[in-house]
Amino acid sequence: MTSKRQMHLGAVPYGTGGPGSHTLWLDPEIPGDASVDIAWYVEMARLAERGRFDLVFIVDSQFITPNSPPHYLNRLEPLTLLSALATQTEHIGLVGTATTSFNSPFNLARRLGSLDLISGGRAGWNVVTTGDAGTAGNYGLDDHYDYETRYGRASEFIELAQALWDSYEDDAFVRDRTSGAFLDRGKQHRLDHDGKYFKVRGPLNLVRSAQGHPVIFQAGDSEQGRDLGASLGEGIFTHAADIGAGQAFCDDLKTRARAKFGRRPDQLVIMPGIKVVVGDTDQEAREIEAYNNDRDHTFDAALGEFGRPFGWHDFRQYDLDAPFPADVLAYGERSFYTRARAITQQAVENRWTLRETVESTRQFHRGEFVGSAQTVAAKLIEWWEARACDGFNIGIDHPSNFRRVVDEVVPILQERGAFRADYDSTTLRGHLGLPIPANRHTERREAVDEAV
Amino acid sequence: MTSKRQMHLGAVPYGTGGPGSHTLWLDPEIPGDASVDIAWYVEMARLAERGRFDLVFIVDSQFITPNSPPHYLNRLEPLTLLSALATQTEHIGLVGTATTSFNSPFNLARRLGSLDLISGGRAGWNVVTTGDAGTAGNYGLDDHYDYETRYGRASEFIELAQALWDSYEDDAFVRDRTSGAFLDRGKQHRLDHDGKYFKVRGPLNLVRSAQGHPVIFQAGDSEQGRDLGASLGEGIFTHAADIGAGQAFCDDLKTRARAKFGRRPDQLVIMPGIKVVVGDTDQEAREIEAYNNDRDHTFDAALGEFGRPFGWHDFRQYDLDAPFPADVLAYGERSFYTRARAITQQAVENRWTLRETVESTRQFHRGEFVGSAQTVAAKLIEWWEARACDGFNIGIDHPSNFRRVVDEVVPILQERGAFRADYDSTTLRGHLGLPIPANRHTERREAVDEAV
Ligand SMILES: Cc1cc2nc3c(=O)[nH]c(=O)nc-3n(C[C@H](O)[C@H](O)[C@H](O)COP(=O)(O)O)c2cc1C
Ligand SMILES: Cc1cc2nc3c(=O)[nH]c(=O)nc-3n(C[C@H](O)[C@H](O)[C@H](O)COP(=O)(O)O)c2cc1C
Repeated sequence: MTSKRQMHLGAVPYGTGGPGSHTLWLDPEIPGDASVDIAWYVEMARLAERGRFDLVFIVDSQFITPNSPPHYLNRLEPLTLLSALATQTEHIGLVGTATTSFNSPFNLARRLGSLDLISGGRAGWNVVTTGDAGTAGNYGLDDHYDYETRYGRASEFIELAQALWDSYEDDAFVRDRTSGAFLDRGKQHRLDHDGKYFKVRGPLNLVRSAQGHPVIFQAGDSEQGRDLGASLGEGIFTHAADIGAGQAFCDDLKTRARAKFGRRPDQLVIMPGIKVVVGDTDQEAREIEAYNNDRDHTFDAALGEFGRPFGWHDFRQYDLDAPFPADVLAYGERSFYTRARAITQQAVENRWTLRETVESTRQFHRGEFVGSAQTVAAKLIEWWEARACDGFNIGIDHPSNFRRVVDEVVPILQERGAFRADYDSTTLRGHLGLPIPANRHTERREAVDEAV
Repeated sequence: MTSKRQMHLGAVPYGTGGPGSHTLWLDPEIPGDASVDIAWYVEMARLAERGRFDLVFIVDSQFITPNSPPHYLNRLEPLTLLSALATQTEHIGLVGTATTSFNSPFNLARRLGSLDLISGGRAGWNVVTTGDAGTAGNYGLDDHYDYETRYGRASEFIELAQALWDSYEDDAFVRDRTSGAFLDRGKQHRLDHDGKYFKVRGPLNLVRSAQGHPVIFQAGDSEQGRDLGASLGEGIFTHAADIGAGQAFCDDLKTRARAKFGRRPDQLVIMPGIKVVVGDTDQEAREIEAYNNDRDHTFDAALGEFGRPFGWHDFRQYDLDAPFPADVLAYGERSFYTRARAITQQAVENRWTLRETVESTRQFHRGEFVGSAQTVAAKLIEWWEARACDGFNIGIDHPSNFRRVVDEVVPILQERGAFRADYDSTTLRGHLGLPIPANRHTERREAVDEAV
């Protein structure tokens, strides 16, 4: 752990496409089935590792229709994917999205704990409550949970997983070949959790990893989502429109963490997802951006994905040039409601048509991190110094572009002292400057010992 | 696929211990934390691959107490483990145990489908209903399901997973870079399954692998278990006491498959789990066996594990020299009941004491596959030619011993034409001589086309 503030970088592989790059698969450098091609993921993860990135970040979705954009149709389950990457990389953190709405705590804690051991303490868990309401249909429910249940489950689930990860104290296994003693039985702890949403006996049949627990990331933007991040999150995945929005978000989250939950603000690492375009000159970068947007992010493509926060409501049915149909907000109630509401409010306030509203989402971040390597590096540092964030989750769209980030932008960040020149830790917690959580049972025992 | 009958070999890594080898971790060649050490698993899987084995097979358990034998205490989740092995091996099949009692079909189908893609069509699923009743407590239940529910869920679960794996026809993704067409929408199929135990909408957001579906293994011995294996199993994991028991089991399973379910008997590959000991001479091998048993499988160790089929009932409380306490069978009703009943019946019939009963389980397979490489190879071939099995799942206990299996026994099997000289397939189905299942939607379409 370094005491000097450092920028943190994550890489988000888009596969065959991603937000704002719907037809990436048209790039001849990208395999048409990149989203299920492990060799492609290995190549991208190693590229990010060469750039000393803190982590790769795998988003998730489990609901499709024939009309879903290409990058939703076909994708590997995140933790299975990351376990395959674990033995193909050495340093980079491996953060996978998994939902608390449609998993069992024991099962997921075990999978994350296994990934954490396999990777030598590099696992992270992006906790989501599942944004796509239709997913409920794949898990026996007619409808997604309401927000209270979604976030109630999420916080109980995380605390339960963390308790399961503490099933063994770090010195529980004595493995004395002379005496034949294997386990110090007093250092295995069951749980007998009986909560509002879950009942779990424990113990988990797994030791802790080199970093103690997987790192908890969180991505949800409502009041409940922000409270969850501020109370239990260690990393935050978000999207900020500009420096001001980023600052407001960071300030809100870190103030909550401190004031409401008594936590140290530097133990909450906020990393918005961004798109970067690097050119030889600013002018060339802008041209590449325009070219890519024309091809990868047409209005039609944007219109298709626009429905996502609204439960994949089909907006093709409306007159593009009529006022934004604000009633659609109802469709978002059990999906990405905070985002759906923000879009709707903005459209209503500005009296936008549907076309203008879609266009506004299409413009998101355009031009912000676009330019020569110097310009991009300066912009990243500007956000980071202004405390609009603690780092960035950079989308891997075109590999040629991401290579330039690694080979040209990162060295400037390093020269400027903002970013590590080399890994000085082997764990994700180490990279992020997060402490190893004490095992609750050891802590209790030590407290008792001190009191005696 | 070869038409000549071939022996099939699986390797079952024991980690820090296993059935009949409780204190493997005393072997200085085995890391004390082998059961969570990915490097150790990679080494063993590569060794088995060097021996041209069909597969590695990972068993599972999710219930522990401080009294559990060493090899239960600390272990990686099987599919997470296998995904890490997938990118470290090239040919060998990867079979993982996962329960239908405490998983959701959509989630597990997705994880298995992902492993199958990552490994290039080498995934297998050992379907269990969870033998350790106490596991229920980790999933919110006071008690494990009754047998009807366990096996009812299992068969519905498997068929559902297979239907999900057929969500896309093999030519669904056109990915035409000229026209920009990505998906042939008519070749994505949802499910709308609404069964007795599960309700799942689909489609699964994953294409099929090179082998179509992961291979279904099954391990359960009751009437219901055997029917499940005969109807949906493609591989069977079992334990046979001797050639006669093996023949009876194979005959029963294959007759059921043909007579009751109209299946081809050669599409059911039966592989009992065995322990092999190789020495320079038969005499030396017997000495090694005796030495290992004294150390690795003491009476006390056997007594500890003896309780497993009876729901980990603690037999230390009984007089070892009194008649076997047959009432204990009740403790096994929701665990490994078929095994518990067989042990109890045998003890009662023979009027054994508890000590004699435990001793009889301790003697299981002793001396059977023990000898010089020549002797062991001859014994394997004898079982296989007598149709007591189609192959073997060989436990990896001491690495020095397993190396001799690979380097000395396998070459004899190869010379005798019983076992492949080299891999002639890249998929697990290919190794096992199993066909690629047709996609049900393509099949239906073709049937309609033919009728027209
Ligand atoms: C930046 C961000 C990223 C998200 N990523 C995912 C994801 O990968 N998979 C998913 O199912 N949900 C994802 N979500 C959904 C959230 O978990 C949550 O269900 C949704 O945003 C609605 O909650 P909210 O109103 O608190 O934002 C994401 C949300 C945000 C804001
Ligand atoms: C050879 C064999 C291997 C098994 N392996 C496992 C295992 O790895 N994990 C598990 O939870 N259950 C395992 N089981 C348990 C079965 O799935 C089943 O729950 C149990 O045997 C009771 O059913 P039965 O009476 O039909 O045998 C195994 C059973 C057998 C016979």
